[in-house]
Amino acid sequence: MIYFDNAATGGSKPYCVRETVNSVIAFLCANPTRSGHKLANAGAEAVFRCRNLLKEVFGCGSAERVIFTKNCTEALNTAIFGILKKGDHAVMTCAEHNSVLRPTERLKKSIGLETDVIYPEKNAYISQKYLITYDAIKPFIKKNTRLVITNHCSNVTGAFTDVKGIGEGLKRDFPEVLYMVDGAQSGGHVSIDMARDKIDVLCLAGHKGLGGIMGSGALLFSEAADIAPLTFGGTGSDAFKLDQPDYYPERLESGTLNLPAIVSLYEGVLATNPTMGKNAEKLVFLTETLISALKKTSGVKVYSQPNPCGIVAFSAENLPSGEYAELLSEKYDIAVRGGFHCAPLMHRYLETEKNGLVRISLSAENTERETAAFLAAAKELSFM
Amino acid sequence: MIYFDNAATGGSKPYCVRETVNSVIAFLCANPTRSGHKLANAGAEAVFRCRNLLKEVFGCGSAERVIFTKNCTEALNTAIFGILKKGDHAVMTCAEHNSVLRPTERLKKSIGLETDVIYPEKNAYISQKYLITYDAIKPFIKKNTRLVITNHCSNVTGAFTDVKGIGEGLKRDFPEVLYMVDGAQSGGHVSIDMARDKIDVLCLAGHKGLGGIMGSGALLFSEAADIAPLTFGGTGSDAFKLDQPDYYPERLESGTLNLPAIVSLYEGVLATNPTMGKNAEKLVFLTETLISALKKTSGVKVYSQPNPCGIVAFSAENLPSGEYAELLSEKYDIAVRGGFHCAPLMHRYLETEKNGLVRISLSAENTERETAAFLAAAKELSFM
Repeated sequence: MIYFDNAATGGSKPYCVRETVNSVIAFLCANPTRSGHKLANAGAEAVFRCRNLLKEVFGCGSAERVIFTKNCTEALNTAIFGILKKGDHAVMTCAEHNSVLRPTERLKKSIGLETDVIYPEKNAYISQKYLITYDAIKPFIKKNTRLVITNHCSNVTGAFTDVKGIGEGLKRDFPEVLYMVDGAQSGGHVSIDMARDKIDVLCLAGHKGLGGIMGSGALLFSEAADIAPLTFGGTGSDAFKLDQPDYYPERLESGTLNLPAIVSLYEGVLATNPTMGKNAEKLVFLTETLISALKKTSGVKVYSQPNPCGIVAFSAENLPSGEYAELLSEKYDIAVRGGFHCAPLMHRYLETEKNGLVRISLSAENTERETAAFLAAAKELSFM
Repeated sequence: MIYFDNAATGGSKPYCVRETVNSVIAFLCANPTRSGHKLANAGAEAVFRCRNLLKEVFGCGSAERVIFTKNCTEALNTAIFGILKKGDHAVMTCAEHNSVLRPTERLKKSIGLETDVIYPEKNAYISQKYLITYDAIKPFIKKNTRLVITNHCSNVTGAFTDVKGIGEGLKRDFPEVLYMVDGAQSGGHVSIDMARDKIDVLCLAGHKGLGGIMGSGALLFSEAADIAPLTFGGTGSDAFKLDQPDYYPERLESGTLNLPAIVSLYEGVLATNPTMGKNAEKLVFLTETLISALKKTSGVKVYSQPNPCGIVAFSAENLPSGEYAELLSEKYDIAVRGGFHCAPLMHRYLETEKNGLVRISLSAENTERETAAFLAAAKELSFM
């Protein structure tokens, strides 16, 4: 099968990731930070190494503020519910995933959270370098704005947000506003540096561009952010306190940590970080190739610009996206995702609410031979 | 190293678990229930197979009410926060883990939850078959009691709760009260059947007796229970609804599922379930051996009865439990857990709040040779 669904989860893991997970499951089955014996301590060291690596790679101020989660959704939920309080206002964009839209919708109903959702100009997704810039955000900041949430790269089209511009603008003009970035799609594909880009909260999926396995995710936050816990329980510390510990990471990590996922993330980041620039070039080239060929394909409309996350979204006038994706899988053994990609407002913005979009999402493992095979299939499908 | 810390996490995984996880990470990297292509569908089928297996093995009414969590703590939190409302009263026992005590403490502060914690008679842990019976629970049920929470087997001493007696009693006398069981320690060691034992909510750790890897946990609940979500986000369904779907399992499962952990749980349950009875016999025998020998060891006090979960807790008058555990690890290469095991009220009940207890926790993989090596070490340590 040709796997073009890497934005859902990375289709192949680096060899070191597979081998290390295998070794941990065979030889390091011990509960890190719980018991004090040698094996548990070796597990705790592996966990700390990963915290420290993420701190370094993503410019987070402290390793204690690197929290391991089961996926990016849990990271986003933890931050949203842990930061926003009654009376607060939050700004987000139409490009957000349901993992941002649904928690904030919940807070609208439970505590009366005020929100604004930013829609860019009609053709911005195709005509501008960034879908969302600071200029679009700034007019929406109010006295009670507590949090600005933007994704870094749209999971639907691969369109980018000007994270650095927004981070710098907010810190300059509204230093009391926290800036949170959903890096689910961009992590591992482009450089993200919380200190450089003035990001307060960064949420990551470990199992996409970062090369980890499913079950890995992370929440990183600066000294400016204080995040109340979403879950409560054993932390291996202060056992007699019935309140959750008030220090990080324990405050936000209850219960047994997922050691295999954490070591996979460590190995994944070690493997993908040094090759990120080269891989990004390849993905820009491959998406460029796909986009220019698809534009020449009869009945196809393309919604993406070339991008380093490897995402190309398009519609075909003769087939709804779900059917198109199914045919690609059944007839050509090519895996893509049709439909709405859990990002309803982005589809509303793109006016693709009826038939959705076919989303190709590449990794640097994909080849020109594979993109050529897909283009041949797309040509055939345009005559159906 | 002799690994006697299986109550923290299972020290070795069945071969089929390791091999299947390895294969899934190599060949089944696709997001189950998201995209509709063949590989994603194969993942979704693997997830459904596991739901169905847990439903069958644990007597849960429906596979849709089997929810995958990252650990037992997340399962307990989801149920506690998702069931209890303002004005409710909950009953629990001194044997509960902080994964129950801390969420309920939180609710006491946030919504004024009323709670009662049951302490059994002073020597019940050593003199009675069950630490907690229905007779102890019944007097505490009030008009507004919504939930009774008991663990099945104490993670400190291995003492059992009469789950069947409590379940039957509650359903008979107080049918509107929900009964929730923390099966973190007992799952995979003794039979649990929600229908037979009249359990409404069952929380499981996948990585202990059930043979799965860290990162696996489950929440199972009956038709009587309705659980509101703790996290919100993408479910691969109803993308245009900004409210979380109101049907299970989607209502309680946001974001990418942990496919490697789920298949490990499936393989683990398939491997451990048929041998559970034989393994329980072995663990009762091994704990019996340890207990009778420790009782003859100078300065040692034992807090456990023989049990099928393989747990033996003791104190040594010459050494605090933490130091004892450290010496066992450093000098004898034996892994146990000292301290308080995230179960403060159990230690209060046992009057071991000062020095904690040394906890040995065996699996059926452990041997008589290993218990003999430990007993030789314990003898030496008693002379220190």
